[in-house]
Amino acid sequence: MNKNAVVLLSGGVDSATVLAMARSQGYNCYCISFAYGQRHSSELVAAKQVATVLGAVEHVVINLDVGQFGGSALTDPTIQVPDYTGSKNIPVTYVPARNITFLSIALGYAETRAADHIFIGASTVDYSGYPDCRPEFMAAFEKVANLATKVGVETGCIRIEAPLINLSKAATIQAGLALGVDYSLTVSCYQADTTGLACGRCDSCMLRKKGFTELGVADPTRYIHGT
Amino acid sequence: MNKNAVVLLSGGVDSATVLAMARSQGYNCYCISFAYGQRHSSELVAAKQVATVLGAVEHVVINLDVGQFGGSALTDPTIQVPDYTGSKNIPVTYVPARNITFLSIALGYAETRAADHIFIGASTVDYSGYPDCRPEFMAAFEKVANLATKVGVETGCIRIEAPLINLSKAATIQAGLALGVDYSLTVSCYQADTTGLACGRCDSCMLRKKGFTELGVADPTRYIHGT
Repeated sequence: MNKNAVVLLSGGVDSATVLAMARSQGYNCYCISFAYGQRHSSELVAAKQVATVLGAVEHVVINLDVGQFGGSALTDPTIQVPDYTGSKNIPVTYVPARNITFLSIALGYAETRAADHIFIGASTVDYSGYPDCRPEFMAAFEKVANLATKVGVETGCIRIEAPLINLSKAATIQAGLALGVDYSLTVSCYQADTTGLACGRCDSCMLRKKGFTELGVADPTRYIHGT
Repeated sequence: MNKNAVVLLSGGVDSATVLAMARSQGYNCYCISFAYGQRHSSELVAAKQVATVLGAVEHVVINLDVGQFGGSALTDPTIQVPDYTGSKNIPVTYVPARNITFLSIALGYAETRAADHIFIGASTVDYSGYPDCRPEFMAAFEKVANLATKVGVETGCIRIEAPLINLSKAATIQAGLALGVDYSLTVSCYQADTTGLACGRCDSCMLRKKGFTELGVADPTRYIHGT
């Protein structure tokens, strides 16, 4: 059995948990992260540490200058990252076509590493309104991935694995803790500073906080104001 | 009516023809090219000239370091570009997941430019055996594009246009000449030198030569050996 997998690793809670899950299932994990002009580039430092601690075979960082397109608060310094509001609309932190781009590049990486499983930490629970985190997107991507590639055409075996798709942040953290994930290494904040200190106010910070609170365990996140 | 379109522009015969077609249909064209570690980077110089001459609104070049993955004669200097054999197998010039990656990045670009049509010069005739040039791939990509993006979810209007999909190289050149395309500006060769001189022996050169020959018009390609 081919036990190689590619894991999309952002450096946050979700992808660290997914990497731990893939490792626990016996996969040799090839991790991929993206420097795409995001404000919170300290997440890449976190990703590197997480990959090492969780025993990835390899960790590559792809430079992708899509920030030049603009159109997102995560990549355009003229658009402010909003405080958490709980809105179900697609937020300004949406990056146009981000997950399809990341998955496509991961697919090429997977093909060169004889990996037919690609893991991604997307979730529709505690939903931030991103269209490319939904199961119907994952299913459609899996279909096109098997048409787009040599390995897909020859075997039809490419699978997109999104094991958190129906898990709340609390359930994700619970699963990760059971697998020994050290969440103090991870960075979630959309505008974390260069040392990884979190703002405590953006959507991503609030969802992370809520997860630890619901689970009733200590939040190891380092906040700018110590809160 | 929204008349903005993104056009994938490699600098070769096909994409130049597609740009001319989109312009003739009244689209404001936003062109995108990729520096992905290909041997034949002179095609990017050609793409820039073609975009200017055919009246593109904008031309962006995305640096994409997927060459580090290896696995293709186009991006790995240790794998030789083969001479043309006419084989129908997927050749070593196949770049893993190239078209799905290019289309995904083009999709994000399109979303920021209010363009819902994306043009690509893929063809199944004079077929080089690439899985990601087939109509079933284009249809599946169009479907996932409408699930992956804010504009797709809100309007369902994203369309992938592959107007050459059923055209031979000769028919493509004929269509382009009718629209005034100057093919002396284009570079097709997989291993063109830095000035755009073509080898005359690889799959891409042979298909281009065959097109001009079948059409009975002079081939303006500049070959290394003057042939």
